[in-house]
Amino acid sequence: MKAFHEQLYPGFSQLLDVTECLIEKQSLFQRIQIFETPVFGRVLALDGAVQITEQDNHIYHEMLVHVPMFAHGNVKDVLIVGGGDGGSLKEALKHPVDSVTMVELDGEVIDLARRFFPDVSDNAFQDDRADVLVDDAYSYLAEEKRHFDLILVDSTDPVGVAAPLFTREFYQRCFRRLRSSGMIVVQSGLPPFRTEATEIKAKPFMSVFGQLQKYVAPVPSYPMGMIGLNGASMSGDSLSPCVDSIRHRIDKQPITTRYYRPETHKAAFDLLRGGEL
Amino acid sequence: MKAFHEQLYPGFSQLLDVTECLIEKQSLFQRIQIFETPVFGRVLALDGAVQITEQDNHIYHEMLVHVPMFAHGNVKDVLIVGGGDGGSLKEALKHPVDSVTMVELDGEVIDLARRFFPDVSDNAFQDDRADVLVDDAYSYLAEEKRHFDLILVDSTDPVGVAAPLFTREFYQRCFRRLRSSGMIVVQSGLPPFRTEATEIKAKPFMSVFGQLQKYVAPVPSYPMGMIGLNGASMSGDSLSPCVDSIRHRIDKQPITTRYYRPETHKAAFDLLRGGEL
Repeated sequence: MKAFHEQLYPGFSQLLDVTECLIEKQSLFQRIQIFETPVFGRVLALDGAVQITEQDNHIYHEMLVHVPMFAHGNVKDVLIVGGGDGGSLKEALKHPVDSVTMVELDGEVIDLARRFFPDVSDNAFQDDRADVLVDDAYSYLAEEKRHFDLILVDSTDPVGVAAPLFTREFYQRCFRRLRSSGMIVVQSGLPPFRTEATEIKAKPFMSVFGQLQKYVAPVPSYPMGMIGLNGASMSGDSLSPCVDSIRHRIDKQPITTRYYRPETHKAAFDLLRGGEL
Repeated sequence: MKAFHEQLYPGFSQLLDVTECLIEKQSLFQRIQIFETPVFGRVLALDGAVQITEQDNHIYHEMLVHVPMFAHGNVKDVLIVGGGDGGSLKEALKHPVDSVTMVELDGEVIDLARRFFPDVSDNAFQDDRADVLVDDAYSYLAEEKRHFDLILVDSTDPVGVAAPLFTREFYQRCFRRLRSSGMIVVQSGLPPFRTEATEIKAKPFMSVFGQLQKYVAPVPSYPMGMIGLNGASMSGDSLSPCVDSIRHRIDKQPITTRYYRPETHKAAFDLLRGGEL
């Protein structure tokens, strides 16, 4: 049996048995692999890093989207940077939003994800409120004149094509497109404990938004089982209100989730001590 | 450079670069390896499975010990099954207990851990309240007549020498040695999401204690980044009281921790949905 070997951090890697390889190709931007595994079901990997699996993608997408959604409480216009698999789009559209704009660099990821992971987007691409652009978000944000309540950076890790999405310049472009009550959450592509790399990567975000509210999504298929998420609020509001206040908002605006609930929202912040494990 | 290859779950494994191998030997009971890694520092592995690392052992030990300690509130006598590295012993002795009895099968693990991981036990073995026995806990519990407020099963995974520690018979022996207000926490040696194996393994625990309070310790060096912990209380009390009540107990009985705090205590339960991820 073949194995998929992922080395995200130096000195540490993981191996997934592959029962069937479905796609292995180079797009204009990156290497795309889709394969079946006994542990996580079907897997999508970009440039050698697991992006989503059938088993646990819902945890990542729900925690990326619903945490800022319910922390904000009145999101009308959302911008998703990346997110080609459509999972974040699907979650955002569960809310009474006016528009969700998604700017994904790689049209092939969208096409392949719709074909091989139909449940992840679940027809979200057909929703009237969805506006899906195949474009470079870094350039797109320099030109766009609209403002958003929420920007979600659902990108690959800060190497290769996604590297510009972790710079001060990119965060400044996001800053300028956020309303005064706006929020931003970016996947931080970093291990869950403090390292020199964590410190360096946090600086541009901090310098633009003046704050960094960290939380995690437990995703067993990611190396070390977690992904760090970095959030900020233009108004200074907490992305982690008390459980009762989150519950009150969900009761008023019920959505269906598999993992997200008021308690997991809070726990995702509280599991960290001083911002890391 | 050599690599340490750990395959705990079928179809999934992880690789750690090894910069220096310090010990590699077969004891009477198991294969013991101690080696240096760039990511997690010094590592102890038993029968091919990572037990503790310098980087993150404190998270495991603190969450195993302080969660039931503060949930109970008045622990005087503790029994630790396994725990040869001394980390759980050290954490338990931070509390105003009368006695901590540790029953470890493999004396070589104790000796090597004291030599290569002195900070993990930090002289706990010299504490007057510590009673360290090199013995088989399964047999020990059949003979022992004392009662304990807390039993901690800090064992290896449910394969090989530790397999008897996951049986109904073993849990019954624990049950008989717990006071009416007693608590038990066992490391469950299972992935953080629901599988057939999880269901089967939970049954003997449930059938003896009539309940199963699950929580996790986030430990990046364990496969999938987490270890599941199964707890029960003889009186039916919650192992996860509200944050304020935990805080009140810590304020009265301050202890020094690196990871554990009232919020991480609560989050470790709340991160799960329906008992798993």
